[in-house]
Amino acid sequence: MLELFIGDKNYSTWSMRPWLVLQHFAIPFKEHLIPFDHFELDSQFKHSILKINPTGKVPVLVDDGFLIWDTLAICEYLAEKFPDKDLWPEGVQQRARARSMCAEMHSSFMALRSLCGMNIDADLTNIGAKLWQDNLKLQQDVQRIEQLWSERPSTDSFLCGDQFSIVDAFYAPVVMRFVGYGIPISSFSQQYVQKILAVPAVQQWIQEAKAEFRFVECEEPYRTE
Amino acid sequence: MLELFIGDKNYSTWSMRPWLVLQHFAIPFKEHLIPFDHFELDSQFKHSILKINPTGKVPVLVDDGFLIWDTLAICEYLAEKFPDKDLWPEGVQQRARARSMCAEMHSSFMALRSLCGMNIDADLTNIGAKLWQDNLKLQQDVQRIEQLWSERPSTDSFLCGDQFSIVDAFYAPVVMRFVGYGIPISSFSQQYVQKILAVPAVQQWIQEAKAEFRFVECEEPYRTE
Ligand SMILES: N[C@@H](CCC(=O)N[C@@H](CS)C(=O)NCC(=O)O)C(=O)O
Ligand SMILES: N[C@@H](CCC(=O)N[C@@H](CS)C(=O)NCC(=O)O)C(=O)O
Repeated sequence: MLELFIGDKNYSTWSMRPWLVLQHFAIPFKEHLIPFDHFELDSQFKHSILKINPTGKVPVLVDDGFLIWDTLAICEYLAEKFPDKDLWPEGVQQRARARSMCAEMHSSFMALRSLCGMNIDADLTNIGAKLWQDNLKLQQDVQRIEQLWSERPSTDSFLCGDQFSIVDAFYAPVVMRFVGYGIPISSFSQQYVQKILAVPAVQQWIQEAKAEFRFVECEEPYRTE
Repeated sequence: MLELFIGDKNYSTWSMRPWLVLQHFAIPFKEHLIPFDHFELDSQFKHSILKINPTGKVPVLVDDGFLIWDTLAICEYLAEKFPDKDLWPEGVQQRARARSMCAEMHSSFMALRSLCGMNIDADLTNIGAKLWQDNLKLQQDVQRIEQLWSERPSTDSFLCGDQFSIVDAFYAPVVMRFVGYGIPISSFSQQYVQKILAVPAVQQWIQEAKAEFRFVECEEPYRTE
């Protein structure tokens, strides 16, 4: 039995990724949401997650008591466990590209990640316009992401092939940030944004995020309520 | 034909990882060393690497013109390309643990990574003692790493099994930092350090690092020459 522990759908980008993979590929799993309050040691969140995962972070996958504690490792584990579902793109080279892009997401884009925290429920386009003007590093992150997206096989394809795969799940939270902060992108990138927003698993995540109605102060540098 | 582009062996932790994998598993490859000077856009390093890799970083693997641009993706690519060599540990669970640990290395331990830059040629034990005393976050990083190491199958095993695998390559630069800065660790951790230092590929990297005799200022916050 697969169990996925996640944070608030409105805010938790890392949780979103493996959840999308499980949901999109119709892999049965039980979801446990551990709500964020804050991230200090005395938080409710840490109190709950540290019982399960010594890193004190979400997401975590538990498979019959066995722990896998990082997004990328979770996705690789699922790919191994369900080889018929083709969670990675077909073809050695597209797979290598997909993994390079996932790893780059995993360790880069710090300006985008720190300035434009995901907040699905909020319209932050005014804030976004200002952030965009003031932050060269944000512009550089977006430029690199657009470069990666522009190398997809065709206008209408996903990032590394015709099918949605792990790499698209990795960039889905970026899509949410681009939309929420109104980041100015090319129409070719815009087409990819629309493609992702049309994926049923993505739509479900968005809906459930919007239905949370939880305002977590440490995740809200811009809104006041 | 596999070509690996790396930085200075004395300093470049990310370069060390796939190099060790290639070398340890006797996979033929051509090495290209792009020496560090600094990391601004007008550096020699960026001038050279940007011709090959748009992220402007090393390591990069090029396989007959095809680019793989991140350590973790490079290792997965090699594991796919040489399935008989068992680059990942045997067994689904040890493999999942190995990948979780690699991904954690990939995105965590920021205090250790920023305060204790790898510098194989230098004896920084005096500096290390002071850093250790002053930085709780460094202590926490080391504590977590020791916890991970303590869960290896047996005293005398590698991290996820009897054989050296990708996960050991990922933690080898940590071993070099622990040694160079004289980080105080348990004797159980110390045994793992010795195990890694005895791996021929690691010995070769160390030897070649020491033979470089290049002092790169931006990598030397502690030494003056
Ligand atoms: N590299 C980790 C990152 C996980 C992560 O940072 N998760 C956030 C939520 S999106 C978290 O749990 N933060 C709690 C904290 O940093 O204390 C992964 O890919 O799983
Ligand atoms: N996540 C990348 C990190 C690579 C990385 O940061 N490499 C360093 C050298 S060890 C580098 O090229 N730095 C140049 C820079 O940051 O401008 C990987 O795993 O390959």
